[in-house]
This record gives sequence, structure tokens and C-alpha cells, in this order.
Amino acid sequence: MAKTLIAGGLFITADETAPWIKGSMVMENGSITYIGESEPEPRNSYDEVIDGTNKLYMPGLVNTHGHAAMSLLRGWGDDMALQVWLETKMWPMEAKFTANDVKWGTLLAILEMVKGGTTTFVDMYDHMHEVAQAVELSGMRGCLARGVIGLCPPEVQDAKLKEATEFARTWHGRAGGRITTMMSPHAPYTCPPDYIERIVQAAHDLNLPLHTHMSETSREVQANVDQYGLRPVAHLEKLGVFTRPTLVAHGVHLTDEEIATLSKYDVRISHNPGSNLKLASGVARVPELLKAGVKVSLGTDSAASNNNLDMFEEMRLAALIHKGVSGDPVAVPATEALRMGTRLGAESIWLNDVGQLKAGMKADFIALDIDQPHFLPKTDFISHIVYSASAKDVVDVCIDGQWIVRKGECLTLDEEKIKREFQSCFQSLVG
Amino acid sequence: MAKTLIAGGLFITADETAPWIKGSMVMENGSITYIGESEPEPRNSYDEVIDGTNKLYMPGLVNTHGHAAMSLLRGWGDDMALQVWLETKMWPMEAKFTANDVKWGTLLAILEMVKGGTTTFVDMYDHMHEVAQAVELSGMRGCLARGVIGLCPPEVQDAKLKEATEFARTWHGRAGGRITTMMSPHAPYTCPPDYIERIVQAAHDLNLPLHTHMSETSREVQANVDQYGLRPVAHLEKLGVFTRPTLVAHGVHLTDEEIATLSKYDVRISHNPGSNLKLASGVARVPELLKAGVKVSLGTDSAASNNNLDMFEEMRLAALIHKGVSGDPVAVPATEALRMGTRLGAESIWLNDVGQLKAGMKADFIALDIDQPHFLPKTDFISHIVYSASAKDVVDVCIDGQWIVRKGECLTLDEEKIKREFQSCFQSLVG
Repeated sequence: MAKTLIAGGLFITADETAPWIKGSMVMENGSITYIGESEPEPRNSYDEVIDGTNKLYMPGLVNTHGHAAMSLLRGWGDDMALQVWLETKMWPMEAKFTANDVKWGTLLAILEMVKGGTTTFVDMYDHMHEVAQAVELSGMRGCLARGVIGLCPPEVQDAKLKEATEFARTWHGRAGGRITTMMSPHAPYTCPPDYIERIVQAAHDLNLPLHTHMSETSREVQANVDQYGLRPVAHLEKLGVFTRPTLVAHGVHLTDEEIATLSKYDVRISHNPGSNLKLASGVARVPELLKAGVKVSLGTDSAASNNNLDMFEEMRLAALIHKGVSGDPVAVPATEALRMGTRLGAESIWLNDVGQLKAGMKADFIALDIDQPHFLPKTDFISHIVYSASAKDVVDVCIDGQWIVRKGECLTLDEEKIKREFQSCFQSLVG
Repeated sequence: MAKTLIAGGLFITADETAPWIKGSMVMENGSITYIGESEPEPRNSYDEVIDGTNKLYMPGLVNTHGHAAMSLLRGWGDDMALQVWLETKMWPMEAKFTANDVKWGTLLAILEMVKGGTTTFVDMYDHMHEVAQAVELSGMRGCLARGVIGLCPPEVQDAKLKEATEFARTWHGRAGGRITTMMSPHAPYTCPPDYIERIVQAAHDLNLPLHTHMSETSREVQANVDQYGLRPVAHLEKLGVFTRPTLVAHGVHLTDEEIATLSKYDVRISHNPGSNLKLASGVARVPELLKAGVKVSLGTDSAASNNNLDMFEEMRLAALIHKGVSGDPVAVPATEALRMGTRLGAESIWLNDVGQLKAGMKADFIALDIDQPHFLPKTDFISHIVYSASAKDVVDVCIDGQWIVRKGECLTLDEEKIKREFQSCFQSLVG
């Protein structure tokens, strides 16, 4: 694989020992082999030398919760009460989704994500073979799980569990290691306790982590107490979920005691501020979670409740709302929001070789065009990334050492075809 | 002036009788003369025919509160307690600002705003002749006021009031009517009562409106009560402020009684959600204000506390935070947020001929490139504008019938020179 030098760039590393470096970076065989102020070798020893002037390089963004194919439902019902939205808008449409819909819905989401600087995403959905194939084709990194809802007859439960297990076994480590898998009970309120226990056992058998929704709304927490006599954290703890490495989406409504439990088990939280605000679910206790040492990362959730997949926006929301709501102007500073969007995201899905720009890390990085008014003056670029940038500032994206986007164009996917097929899937769904 | 037809476009009108139109729009002599499904005249009767395919046209955004030149302080101190931020970061730098700094700081802000779809902005600052000249040069529409702080000796107060009055008289109606002016006591906590009364009298004499900061933080409200025995609304009412048409920035901390008073006097509120969150000022009672019939518009505040000037983001924040904080998923729907960013913005600064796409309105409009993943599927484009779009989606901007931006390039300003001079001003300020 080519040996590439990026010279004269500004690098935001997400590595505390040197948060930013003005200099150069070398990548070879899919990994970063050097980052520093000088150039380690003469220019003629590289296959490609890239001029980094006016570009800001940073780790690719890691989106730790979503349902990519639901991009088909973007704008299909907004500003509605959650239950009405689910019952009259989301569920009837999702019930019609075919494998083909999931294929094109996911490809469009990947296109939006990758062009906007997201290099790794978590996906929990159905028809996951289509999702995995889309990840493989696109060059993205994906941590994937067949989300299982257990409110169905035993034989359907069995079939779903078998499907989820086979998917997880088949795809884990595929696409040159870019795909990893998890087992995923959809939520405590959609899976009976014994079914959750069976999924946990399957995760043990496969030696894979678990991913679930939890404590997204206060109503859901109350229902859990009413039905099982326990809040969701104690309920999942009792069912053995936390004996596996676990990534939980949302975690909006948590008590101090629950935060302590999550910290004890090293459960990771995917904070989805945009979706939580839009669905009026509430504001997660992120400052408290971080203080308790819980790894908190960021997710967009689906485009049906966000409504875009711009991770810069999630970083900005994470940095802004906790200040406004707590009254503390130093709650979740920019450096922390950036860490949540990159390094903590990678660590939250057990990837320890992405999320930072550092020798030895995989070459998963993005470049922003900073020759624009909203990146001036040239002061604190971590502040500019978190408080001023957007997905549209991304010009180049490299994943696993492969250029996926250059000058804003996706090199691995046929954008025109995807947009056309996607719109056609949507027309069929509503037609 | 040229007669222009835009054909085959999608038009979001902000006019309730026809929220969106698929068809064509004609402009002539700076005004919209037709908008509808057909084409009113044969194509050869136009000087220019524009193909609107894959574009979404909407009224230009109106930013009703800011301090453009403070873009020089973007990223110069974030994540700090308000008082520390002001005392150690903002004020020492602002004290050094020259007319030249304000010139280039404002031009950079205008560049960012206009390229991002803002066609009209309110500015309250010092060295306002520079700001007015920048507005004139750029082709933007501006509602401008010399912001006056009265914590100074009587002769300085006199000089400032004279300067503010002369500025307001000189520039009102200039630049072909694109510039209007206001009188502006900076805030109740920075102007003694008798000085506010003199500014109100000057506004009466000039027959101009007033613009002031008010009730941005709870601390400021408490200080007003301690010092004057009244909350800010009653205090300003007593000083006669509301006998003039008034635009108030922030209005975060308001009682029901204060909201009723603001409604009674038809005082307009510029809601600045990004800045209020970042400075941890709190969350304004926007749903209650709207319910009481108060005209609520949107402002970015300055890039020092935002940190960009993207009005799409303010619309999105306005639509999101009030849902998340109130727990009501129908609080501030997308249509309302769009109205706040366009029509209510124009009405809030007493412009009744911009803010909508409608025959008879001035031709102040923008075009978004909607041939992008985050605008698919083609469903509810008002939802897509508010929940998914960003400043970077804007490709064309027309103000007062003049093309200011086309294909993303600003035609009236020298972008490279402005960026260079701006950075050089910043270097001198810190050097």
C-alpha cells in the first residue's frame, strides 16, 4: 500500500500529550506511522505527498448509535408526540421495509455520514446483511448488530435470536477487520426478561459485546418500575447484561445510584443530544456521567429523529446544552465534546486503534477546509471544530488508510445512483 | 433593472396561504412581481431565465441580534464563567478595537452571514460608520445602532449620545433604503436611568425604534431588583422605553407578568439560543412568549459567544431545545422556527416588505442546493430546512433584487482580501 506524507498541515490529535501539532503525518499500510513537527524522511521516499495548507486534520468521527436505513423516514413526521409519531408514522412504514429498502436507505446514510467526516458508525437494525455489505462496499468502519424486539411468539423469538447470532458470527472481523458485531436486545421494554437472558448467553458464547436502548424517556423508566419493580439499570444488571461489555444508547433518565452502577461495570453510554431534544425525551446527565468516569460518546440516532447525521452538530449540542441547562458555563468544554466525538467513541465500541492521530493508530482521519470565514481568526481550532464547524466543511476522508472522500467527492460509492434508488424506495413505500 | 424568471423551482414562501409552491418566481426592479405554479409571460420577455431544478428557494434569513465585529474574538476564550470571560478576555481586547478593526471584523462577519443565507442583520456596536459602510458595500440589508454604555462621566455620556444620534440620523434610509437605524442603550445594567430616558427622548425626536439587551442572565435580573427595586421589564417600562417601538435581545428570564407587559407594548424579542446556551444564561420562555403573541425572532449574537453566524443552526436550536427542556414534542414546530428566522425577523425590525416570497415583497431570497443526501427523501422541505440544513447548503443569495452570492461565491466583496486583513487585525490586537 502507498506510503503517503501530509505536509504543512494542522493536526488535532485527540491525544492529550499533544492536542494539536503543526507539521506532518505519514501513513503506510493503513496505519499512521509518524506525526510530528518535522518530516521524517526525504520527500522522494513517498508515493504521494499531500499539501496540507489550509487544511485541518483530525480523527474521523465515531457515531455510536443509529439506524442508518431510517434515513428513508427523514421528515416523515416531525413535531409529534412520541407515541403518535411511532404508531402512525414510524412503525407502519418500517413494517413495509424490504431488504432492498434497507440497502438503499443505509447507503444514503453512509454517503451522508462519510462525506460529513464520520468514519465509524454503530448500526442496530434489521436486514443487517444488507447493512454489512454496504459497509464493506463503502470502505467505512461499522460496529453492527441485529436489533431484536422480543414482543412476539416463542418461535419468532427463536428465529430472531438465531438470525442475530448468525449475523454476528458471520460478519465479525470481516471487511479487513472494519466490521465488528454486537448482540442487541432492542430495549428492556421491548424484550421479556428471559429473552434478554438468552441474548446475553449468546453474547457470552460468541464473546461479543451487547448494545441496547435504555432509559430514553421517563415514561419508559416508570413502566419498567411498574412492570418489574426495578428501574432499567437494576433490571438489566439483574439479567446479567453488564457481565458482558455493554454499550447503552441514550441513558437520559438516570439516578446517582444508577450512574455509579454503570461506572462500576464500565458500561458505555451513547449520548444522542439531537434526538433526545427533538423527541422531547429530556437532557442526559452527561457532566455527572463523565465525572463518574463513564465513557460517554455521541450518536445521531436515526435521521427520522435528528434529522441529519452531522456529528459536528452532536459535538456542538453536547457542548452547549449542558451549559445552558445546568447554568455552568464550563460544563462539557470543547475538548471534552471533541473527545466524545472521536476517541471516546472508538473506545466505547472497543476499538483502541482508532480515534486519535498518533503513530501506531489506524489511518482513520478527515480533513476540513479551514480557509473559510467561520474558521477565522486562527486561534483555538478545537473551539472552532466544536462551536463553529459543520459536516459540510469536510473535504477529505481516509479510513483504514484508504481514501474514501477526496475534495468532497465519495470515491467508493455512486452518489447519483444511490440518491435515485433511495428516492425510488421511498416512493414505493408511500405509493 | 433586469427582469428575471426562476423556473421549475421549489419555493418555501413563509406565507401561510401557500407555504410552498412548485413553480416559478419573477423579479423586476428589486421586487418579486409573481410567484405561482405557472409562468406568467413567454420566456423571451425576460432578461434572464434561471433553471430552479434541484434548488429550494426561501426568504433570506434575518438575524436580529449581533455584534458583527466581534468575529475578531471567535475562539478567544470559551468555556469560561461569564464574568471571567468578559473581564479577562472580551473587554481587554474590545478596548483595543480601532475603526479599522471594526471595519474588517464586520466585513468578515458579513461574508460569513451572506454566504450562509442571511440577507438582513441587526448590529449594535461602536464605530458604526464602518459598519454602515460595510453594509452599503456588501449589498446586505442592515438595521444598525450605536450601542451606548453609560457607565462613564457626564461629558462622555453626552458625546456618546451625540454620536449615536448623528449616526442614526445620517444613515437611516441610506444605501437605497437597505439601511435603517435604531437608538440603543446597551442594557439596563450598563446605563443609568436618566441616561436611558435621554436616549428614549432622542429616539422620539428622530422617530426611531430602540434596541437593548435585557434579562439575559438571572444575576442581571437580581441586580436590577437590588439596585432599582424593579425587575428589568418594569424598570424599562417606567423609563418610557416601551413608548417607542422596541426590539429586546435575549429576554431569557421573564415572569408571566413581564411577558404580558411585553405583549401589551408589542415589544419584540430577539431569541439567541446558541449564545444563551454557550454562556449558560439559560433557556428563554419562547413557547410562552409566542403564545402571548409576542413577536419572537432569532439572533446569533456575536461569534465570540456562538461561535458561528449560521442562522439555520439558530432555527434548529429554537425548534429543538424548547422540546427537550419542556418535555413537549410539539413545542416550537419547524414551521414556527422557520417563521422566526424569516418573516418574524423582518417584522421585528419593522420591515414589512421582506421575509416572505410573495408578489409585492422585496426580492430578498436565497437558494439551497437540495440535490444532497441530507435533503432526501423529498418529503417535507420545511422540516428539512429546520432540522437538517446548514449555512453551507446556500448557493445563491439575492438582496433587494441584486445577486450578492452566486454558486457560493460572494460577488460584492473581495473574500481573499477580507480574510487576510481580518487575520492581520487579529494579530495586531494580540501582538
